[in-house]
Amino acid sequence: MRSVGIVTPQSMHFAPPLPLQSGARLADYDLVFETYGTLNAERSNAVLVCHALNASHHVAGTHADGAEGWWDNLIGPGKPLDTNRFFVIGVNNLGSCFGSTGPMHVNPATGQPWGADFPVVTVEDWVDAQARLLDALGIERLAAVIGGSLGGMQALSWTIRHPARVAHALVIASAPNLSAQNIAFNEVARRAIVTDPEFHGGHFYAHGVVPKRGLRVARMIGHITYLSDDSMEAKFGRELRNGGLAYSTQDIEFQIESYLRHQGEKFSEYFDANTYLLITRALDYFDPARAQGGDLAAALAPATAKFLVVSFTTDWRFSPMRSREIVKALIDNRAPVSYAEIDAPHGHDAFLLDDPRYHALLRSYFEQVGAR
Amino acid sequence: MRSVGIVTPQSMHFAPPLPLQSGARLADYDLVFETYGTLNAERSNAVLVCHALNASHHVAGTHADGAEGWWDNLIGPGKPLDTNRFFVIGVNNLGSCFGSTGPMHVNPATGQPWGADFPVVTVEDWVDAQARLLDALGIERLAAVIGGSLGGMQALSWTIRHPARVAHALVIASAPNLSAQNIAFNEVARRAIVTDPEFHGGHFYAHGVVPKRGLRVARMIGHITYLSDDSMEAKFGRELRNGGLAYSTQDIEFQIESYLRHQGEKFSEYFDANTYLLITRALDYFDPARAQGGDLAAALAPATAKFLVVSFTTDWRFSPMRSREIVKALIDNRAPVSYAEIDAPHGHDAFLLDDPRYHALLRSYFEQVGAR
Repeated sequence: MRSVGIVTPQSMHFAPPLPLQSGARLADYDLVFETYGTLNAERSNAVLVCHALNASHHVAGTHADGAEGWWDNLIGPGKPLDTNRFFVIGVNNLGSCFGSTGPMHVNPATGQPWGADFPVVTVEDWVDAQARLLDALGIERLAAVIGGSLGGMQALSWTIRHPARVAHALVIASAPNLSAQNIAFNEVARRAIVTDPEFHGGHFYAHGVVPKRGLRVARMIGHITYLSDDSMEAKFGRELRNGGLAYSTQDIEFQIESYLRHQGEKFSEYFDANTYLLITRALDYFDPARAQGGDLAAALAPATAKFLVVSFTTDWRFSPMRSREIVKALIDNRAPVSYAEIDAPHGHDAFLLDDPRYHALLRSYFEQVGAR
Repeated sequence: MRSVGIVTPQSMHFAPPLPLQSGARLADYDLVFETYGTLNAERSNAVLVCHALNASHHVAGTHADGAEGWWDNLIGPGKPLDTNRFFVIGVNNLGSCFGSTGPMHVNPATGQPWGADFPVVTVEDWVDAQARLLDALGIERLAAVIGGSLGGMQALSWTIRHPARVAHALVIASAPNLSAQNIAFNEVARRAIVTDPEFHGGHFYAHGVVPKRGLRVARMIGHITYLSDDSMEAKFGRELRNGGLAYSTQDIEFQIESYLRHQGEKFSEYFDANTYLLITRALDYFDPARAQGGDLAAALAPATAKFLVVSFTTDWRFSPMRSREIVKALIDNRAPVSYAEIDAPHGHDAFLLDDPRYHALLRSYFEQVGAR
C-alpha cells in the first residue's frame, strides 16, 4: 500500500466571528488543514478526520521534513480509508499549537500573544469551525466523519450539531463524556503545568521560557493512561536499565522510567502548555447528554448518520463500557449502528495502530460507504 | 467496640550499625513505635503491624492532639485484632518523616540534615530494623505480622527473612512486586517532586522551603490510584462544583478536581519530599523472587508461617491477580494459605476501611491465631 506522498498544509482565514459555547466570540481565525485524494464532481466523497489531544491536521503522507502523518497507516491509496475513492480532510483545531489560531498567536485586542487568555474552546466549537471550513471547500455533506478518542467525540458531535451534513460517523476508542477518573488525570496534568514557575500564569512566551517541567510530568501521566497494564508489562516489565540496581531515588533504575522520561522530554520540546490546558478542558467539558439531564439517547436524537462504534478490550482510559453507552443510546433511538470490540493488547493507543482485525473492519466499513 | 484510648509513642535508640541491602550501613538510628494491649508472660501474643506509604507507627487509639490511628477501625478491645488478647506493635519505618530516623534528621557525618543523602532503604531493611526492635522488646516470635499494600510486602518479607519468628502472616491488598505500571506512577510522582525548583536536590531544609508543588502533584496521582474508577464515579461523577461551567482551564469546575487539590494541599503540608522518594523506591525495589530468577515459590521456600492473603475486587493498583500470584507460589510450596477476594467497591483504599465482610474475615482469622 502506498502513501499519499509529500503533502503540504493549507491555511484558510475566517473573518466572521465564531460564537463559542462559553458565550465568548473568536473575532477571526485561521484553520490549517490538509487534503488527500480528489473531491469528486458531486462533492460527495469527502471524509473528515478529527484529531485527538496531541495530533494535528497532518494525518497522512509525509511533510517535506520527513514527518509522517499520525494516521498514515490507515489513509492512502489502497489503504482502509482509500484516497483513490475518498477526498480526506485533516484539520487542525482551534487552540492547537500546530498552525490553526491558538494561544501563541497574537491577540488582536492586545497585540500580545493570547497565552492563557485564549478563549476556552469546546468540542462543539471545533465542530462548528470545521463546518465553516467545509462550507469554504464547497462540501455540503460528508461521506463520513471519523475520529479516535477526543476525535471520536468530535465525530459524535457532528451527528448532533450538523446531522444533515454527515452520512456516516466512525467513533473509535471514545466516550460520551469523561469519567471522574478521566477528569482526575487531566486535572493532575494541568496542575503540574500551571504550578510550574515557568508557566507565568500562561504568559511564559513573554518571559522566553517554557514550563517544561510541568509538560514532562503531564505527558508522563498521559502515557501511562494510553498504554494497557498488560502491554506495559510485556514491553518493559521490571527490566532494569543497567542490569543491576544503583539504589538511587533519582537515577533511572527501570526501563519503564527511561521510556517515560524520554516521552516527557520529547513532548516538552514541541507542545504548547496553554494548548494542553485547552485541549484537556475540551475533553472534560464534552458531555452532550448534560443538556438533556444526562439522557444520551435524547442528546443523539437529532442524528441521522449511520454509525460505526469501535472500542478496544484493554483500553482503560476509554473502556469498551463507555462505547457501549453510545451504542445503547443509538439502539434506543433505533439509529443504525454497528459496534465492534476489538481484542487488542495495546490499550487506548490501539486506535492509532494497524491491528489487522481493526483495519480490516474499517476497510470493509468504508467499502460500503457510498462514495462512488 | 472501644478504642485503645489515648496512646503515647515510644522511641528506642539502636547503636549497632544496620547493614542495608544497598551495601551501605546506617550508623545508628531511632525507631518510634506504639504498643496496644499487654504482652503475655510467654511473650507469645505479639502482633506487628507494618505501615504503607504515608502512614506511621500510630496505628490505633488517639494521640493527645486528637489524631486517630490509621487502622483504629481494626485494632482495639473487642475489635477484629483484639487488644484484649493481643499485644499489638505499630512501628515507624526508617526514612519516614514521622519520628524514626529519616532524611530530616542530622547526618552525623556532616552535622547537616541527611536530605537526599539518606541511605536508600528497602522492605528488607525495614524488616531487619523491626526485628531488632522485637529483640529489644524480648519478643522472639510474632503471633502474627500484618500489613496492607507496602505493609503486606513487609509481612511477606518477614516470612522469608525471619521465618522462625512469624507464626502467621496477613498479606492484604499487596503484590509480590510492582508492575511496570505501578513503577510508572511512582516515577511520575518522583519526577514531579525532584523537578520542583524548591526541591533543591533534596536539600531544601537548608533553604527554608518545601517542594510543595511536586508533593501536591505526587499525592494527586497517588489518590487516583487508591480509588477505584467506580467509587470515584459514585462519589464525584461529573458533578460540578458551582452548578454551572465557568469555562476556565485553571479554575475548579468539577468536584473531583476540588477533592484532589484538597488532598494534594493537605499532604504537602505534612509529608516530607525525601521520604516520599525513599518509600516509593522501596516499593519499586521489592521483588523477593528476583534473586531466584523470578521464581516466587523458591523465594518463599523458607517461609514456615501460616498465611492469609486478602485482595479486593476493584483494587487496580494491587489487583487480585497479584495476590493470586502469592497464593499460587505458597500452594506450590504446600504452605498453609487461606485466600479471600473481597467484593468491595473502594479500590486499593478498601484495606483501610471497615467493610463488614473484610473485618469479619480478619476477626475470624485472628480468633484461630493461637495467642495463649
